[in-house]
Amino acid sequence: MKKTYTSRLNLSTGKVDLSHGGGGRAMAQLIDELFIKHFDNDWLRQRNDQALLSLPAGRLAISTDGHVISPLFFPGGDIGSLAVHGTVNDVAMSGAQPLYLAAGFILEEGLPLADLERIVISMAAAAQSAGTPIVTGDTKVVERGKGDGVFITTTGVGIVPEGVNIAGHRAQPGCAVLLSGTIGDHGVAIMAGRENLQFATRILSDSAALNGLVAAMVAAAPADIFCLRDPTRGGLATALNELAQQSGVGMLIDETQIPIRPDVQAACEILGLDPLYVANEGKLVCICPAAAAERLLAVMREHPLGRDAAIIGEVVADAHGFVQMRTAFGGKRIVDWPVGEQLPRIC
Amino acid sequence: MKKTYTSRLNLSTGKVDLSHGGGGRAMAQLIDELFIKHFDNDWLRQRNDQALLSLPAGRLAISTDGHVISPLFFPGGDIGSLAVHGTVNDVAMSGAQPLYLAAGFILEEGLPLADLERIVISMAAAAQSAGTPIVTGDTKVVERGKGDGVFITTTGVGIVPEGVNIAGHRAQPGCAVLLSGTIGDHGVAIMAGRENLQFATRILSDSAALNGLVAAMVAAAPADIFCLRDPTRGGLATALNELAQQSGVGMLIDETQIPIRPDVQAACEILGLDPLYVANEGKLVCICPAAAAERLLAVMREHPLGRDAAIIGEVVADAHGFVQMRTAFGGKRIVDWPVGEQLPRIC
Repeated sequence: MKKTYTSRLNLSTGKVDLSHGGGGRAMAQLIDELFIKHFDNDWLRQRNDQALLSLPAGRLAISTDGHVISPLFFPGGDIGSLAVHGTVNDVAMSGAQPLYLAAGFILEEGLPLADLERIVISMAAAAQSAGTPIVTGDTKVVERGKGDGVFITTTGVGIVPEGVNIAGHRAQPGCAVLLSGTIGDHGVAIMAGRENLQFATRILSDSAALNGLVAAMVAAAPADIFCLRDPTRGGLATALNELAQQSGVGMLIDETQIPIRPDVQAACEILGLDPLYVANEGKLVCICPAAAAERLLAVMREHPLGRDAAIIGEVVADAHGFVQMRTAFGGKRIVDWPVGEQLPRIC
Repeated sequence: MKKTYTSRLNLSTGKVDLSHGGGGRAMAQLIDELFIKHFDNDWLRQRNDQALLSLPAGRLAISTDGHVISPLFFPGGDIGSLAVHGTVNDVAMSGAQPLYLAAGFILEEGLPLADLERIVISMAAAAQSAGTPIVTGDTKVVERGKGDGVFITTTGVGIVPEGVNIAGHRAQPGCAVLLSGTIGDHGVAIMAGRENLQFATRILSDSAALNGLVAAMVAAAPADIFCLRDPTRGGLATALNELAQQSGVGMLIDETQIPIRPDVQAACEILGLDPLYVANEGKLVCICPAAAAERLLAVMREHPLGRDAAIIGEVVADAHGFVQMRTAFGGKRIVDWPVGEQLPRIC
């Protein structure tokens, strides 16, 4: 039975108000005419407070990620597509194929419904493209000045294939460190958008769903992928430090092997950013036995999201868990954890 | 390997700052000394961006809920315990036993770390008591004035037992409508706290995890529970209207059978609220064949959270999907969907 409303949601000039989070008719209309319309699937159409999923046998991977990026729209994406990619990637970093997403929206009173629709459409397209339907969700509204447009928390579930055992503690001395592509694109795109900076070329966020790339890698070498991590907040430096800490090893990476776009490098110099610490949203680090590195590198390079993949260093024994880098000038320096925050609200 | 920090997190006078969401050392310390310390379990200790779960075979139920309640602390609970109960209950309303939770925090710069610790401790206790460990999470920080202390989005997963088929579209004419206890306690407790109202007795939120009650009901009558819904935002009136709409039926309830505490009734009169529309956080509506109603009622009343359970009405054939109520004065009125928002930020 279809509920009827006295008039349709005004998507051209309407704004979110507190009634859209009140559980009544206004909220039901927002869900019907915006969320169910665009995310369109059987689970949402059932309008239960939860979705029931049939899953293949195996270990379930689950991950959740809040998205608070500012601005909501940026070169190469928006908070909607990012909220899909961010969580799909966190699930994929276990080697799992992400299958379903849940989405919780926290809307600020006064948000133009047109902006929300644009975000929802982008989110629907990203979910469709990643093969991860948004099967359940929730909407809350806070008063003007108590939020910032929209925050989206997504949760993803997937199943880890048999024989795959990927975790942050598995790096061992002698392993190779692979990176799937150029660093810093996302953070620099956001920063340029935020500061209204113009560069000769337009730098776009690399925001992308990595589950296809991971599936290709897992298919090629299921037992040889020891660690996967996407270097998001805190950038490559943080991802490597996390893995070094979890595994109780050191790393030695080679600056000249780290792919970076010349325009991103130039922008980082202008903005005073170290690209090693700048967020990425469509890259991964892979740690594997040295003997498997060339094979995995070839598989990565065959995938559109791994074209610029490179072997950037190796895992070494180090009781202190230091990440060190051979610089382009032949020296060596420690790549430490970031202490403060270079770029707030980057994801 | 344990990372060491130069000093411990200052939980007595410290405040959340943007570095706690930056992905670096400050965030790692917050996670170690607050989240992992209190939520303490093997999944979190592994510090991966996702958790791997072993689940029994069956249909997976998943639900997500954002929590934006204001104030953060209220009589009978706080945003931490509520964030556990809200999602545990949404999962349980499918008949599933909730097994695991994920939690995404959006913190506002300046939030006292002491408040956050109090919330995390309460959340940990609620999760422990519900039997649903918090296995993965995420923390973001927004600038002062772009959030409101803390928002928590939780996602829960559980497995629906064989032979159980509970969904909002299954109500049929002739079915009985059961309610597990008194209405309005949560909304009135929040409102009284917000407006600093004093009543002769202290009204507490009913915030509670209903999975134990649901498990007892499912064990007693697995095939006879057609619909379950927790009447949260929008209250009992909204839950009944949702079920009527999903099932394409009407309902006829009896005002004199609806349990309500006299102090809540009095407070609603003072505050100008209709208790039918006031939120609950520890109650459920159950729709079952009339023949099973007394049996389920007895099971509910044996459980501490169902002591005041009652049969409040019946499902009737009605192409318009109206919910009607026989009033205490012998008349009949339509209990419509709420249009606006009586009580914003109630959950």
